[in-house]
Amino acid sequence: MTTDFGTSDGYVGAMKGEILRRAPGAQIVDLSHDIAPQDVAQGAWCLRRAAPAFPEGTIHVAVVDPGVGTERRGLLVETEHFLLLGPDNGLLMWAAERDRIRAVREIETGRGPWRRSPTFDGLSLFAVAAGQLMAGQEPDSVGSLLKDWKRIAVPPPHACQHAIEGEVMAHDRFGNAITNIPLELLGGRRPSGVEWGGAAPVRLCAAYHDLDGDSDSLGALWNSDGQLELFSYAGSARERFQIGRGQTVRLILSH
Amino acid sequence: MTTDFGTSDGYVGAMKGEILRRAPGAQIVDLSHDIAPQDVAQGAWCLRRAAPAFPEGTIHVAVVDPGVGTERRGLLVETEHFLLLGPDNGLLMWAAERDRIRAVREIETGRGPWRRSPTFDGLSLFAVAAGQLMAGQEPDSVGSLLKDWKRIAVPPPHACQHAIEGEVMAHDRFGNAITNIPLELLGGRRPSGVEWGGAAPVRLCAAYHDLDGDSDSLGALWNSDGQLELFSYAGSARERFQIGRGQTVRLILSH
Amino acid sequence: MTTDFGTSDGYVGAMKGEILRRAPGAQIVDLSHDIAPQDVAQGAWCLRRAAPAFPEGTIHVAVVDPGVGTERRGLLVETEHFLLLGPDNGLLMWAAERDRIRAVREIETGRGPWRRSPTFDGLSLFAVAAGQLMAGQEPDSVGSLLKDWKRIAVPPPHACQHAIEGEVMAHDRFGNAITNIPLELLGGRRPSGVEWGGAAPVRLCAAYHDLDGDSDSLGALWNSDGQLELFSYAGSARERFQIGRGQTVRLILSH
Repeated sequence: MTTDFGTSDGYVGAMKGEILRRAPGAQIVDLSHDIAPQDVAQGAWCLRRAAPAFPEGTIHVAVVDPGVGTERRGLLVETEHFLLLGPDNGLLMWAAERDRIRAVREIETGRGPWRRSPTFDGLSLFAVAAGQLMAGQEPDSVGSLLKDWKRIAVPPPHACQHAIEGEVMAHDRFGNAITNIPLELLGGRRPSGVEWGGAAPVRLCAAYHDLDGDSDSLGALWNSDGQLELFSYAGSARERFQIGRGQTVRLILSH
Repeated sequence: MTTDFGTSDGYVGAMKGEILRRAPGAQIVDLSHDIAPQDVAQGAWCLRRAAPAFPEGTIHVAVVDPGVGTERRGLLVETEHFLLLGPDNGLLMWAAERDRIRAVREIETGRGPWRRSPTFDGLSLFAVAAGQLMAGQEPDSVGSLLKDWKRIAVPPPHACQHAIEGEVMAHDRFGNAITNIPLELLGGRRPSGVEWGGAAPVRLCAAYHDLDGDSDSLGALWNSDGQLELFSYAGSARERFQIGRGQTVRLILSH
Repeated sequence: MTTDFGTSDGYVGAMKGEILRRAPGAQIVDLSHDIAPQDVAQGAWCLRRAAPAFPEGTIHVAVVDPGVGTERRGLLVETEHFLLLGPDNGLLMWAAERDRIRAVREIETGRGPWRRSPTFDGLSLFAVAAGQLMAGQEPDSVGSLLKDWKRIAVPPPHACQHAIEGEVMAHDRFGNAITNIPLELLGGRRPSGVEWGGAAPVRLCAAYHDLDGDSDSLGALWNSDGQLELFSYAGSARERFQIGRGQTVRLILSH
């Protein structure tokens, strides 16, 4: 489960109860309920990072849903290894594309016990559908195949001969700034530096600890997902260096 | 489990460990551990919203307990579908009444391995009792039936010919203000407006999205629990319009 | 699981997925993911408090890991009742010593599917090892026995004839200040007062409620772990009385 509901209001608890009523013994794992309110891109990023680690057949239920109560469709996405349930606003699609999409269906309320709610499709639509699927219902019974769906635009990094230019996609709890520049774009070339639009120098590192004692520089390393990440020795890079989402980052290549 | 313990201190972890030691394989679901410290009413509200979604036979353990260490009793409440464990301070009773109360017992320390703690009955009393009950102990063995118990007073909404007057009961993570005015009080009449004691106008909506682009008005809708709820397009209604708990809200009826 | 990862970034979710892929049906319990970033001592304290409540054979996976990406070793600790997995920085050792250490091993990457990551050994090393162990792998296969490991120094309390002097070790969510002075040091003597270096008087209490209405004093009681704890009636003692970690606290004994 991945939501922006927090856990203090009982919304998530109600969803879990609904799933367990329909599929007793279901193993429910919280991925996150701390997505910033209505931040669909943050939810999509979280889901994309964590989904691949889950077992074959996992049902990912994700609800970050500013369009609840409108005509916005509810989706069931089948990928190579997973099922994903959530609103048609792009939330599911980075994770789904990473795993290869097989089919995208609309959850049609006429076809099952699920229904639309003015404020909380997480319960009445997605938790109900998750419970049904875990209890053995076939994915193709929830509704018709779709040919198009919403996506969140990701500006791809630009690679040229002497540099790769990308941007900050997300921050994590530690204030590290994660870019859209993947290691594979290097193609064997060696980076010689990083520019980011601020005055502080950037040091290329292999681990956070390499910046030990230097609180005036940013560090840059390839993180465990193979993405270029900027960090600070003295706590949050986001706060200390004001490096925000969308900030341009240029990785300079040796030549 | 519903508590105000947060999760950073290990209190909740210790309770889970205690339950699992007595009932290996028990399925433990976190409803919330982010209830504001000692806010019994918020905990009661959270429990009331989420409890009905849970399977028959669920044991709800709730601990928001400013009176720990005093003579305050520990309760086991049996309702139509559930068992509830927690302190006798009203925390359990909104959820219990919603499901119909069958019996309320005091957990008597002489009758089992549970004991009173100066600071943490969550562990020594309620988690232990939960583990015992999940392992098959009969509810009537924990202690004697009670005839009275603490309740949290809820000022009921007042309905007259031309209006229903209630108040803000709680806020959720999004800053939405949830009132004690239920849809069923309408009795088929049509609402024509909402007054709330502030200057901002209130627009009647069917979904959050209906207020799209209008950050100067409050929206009002019937939420998924059938309660009147006030919200803001631009983030938190609580912060933007300073609409606090206890704020009077009047729903004007057409005539 | 005990980490400083928070839950909004998917790190914890990825670890859970990895464990479940290797040990389907594993029962995963969150102890805390809200340890302050890189606060190894807070994590150690949380683990020490909660671990004893868990069932025999529990595997405690703990990751608060400022040294990730360096030569810092990964450990598997066997104690009387548990296995503990985490970095060699002292995080595991208060809990391990409380339960009696039997063996400490280095997780050697050549011996299994685990590997070192520049930024996230929580996934590639510790979650993988946890999954393997839960799936039945023998602890002694992960690596060689160690003879020394990192510890976090805990200044022990000093007891003399007329007083016991200790310090504040940690705060909990409520702002209570927990000291390193255990009840057993009293040895039957009666405390007559507490000094703490601030102006506010301290009242000896048996329960939080004993300070009811007195917001100008600190209260002191023996908490459920048998440690001396200072608290405030009006919310957080940490904030109201500025009583920080490391603050000296003297328990005066009657004579």
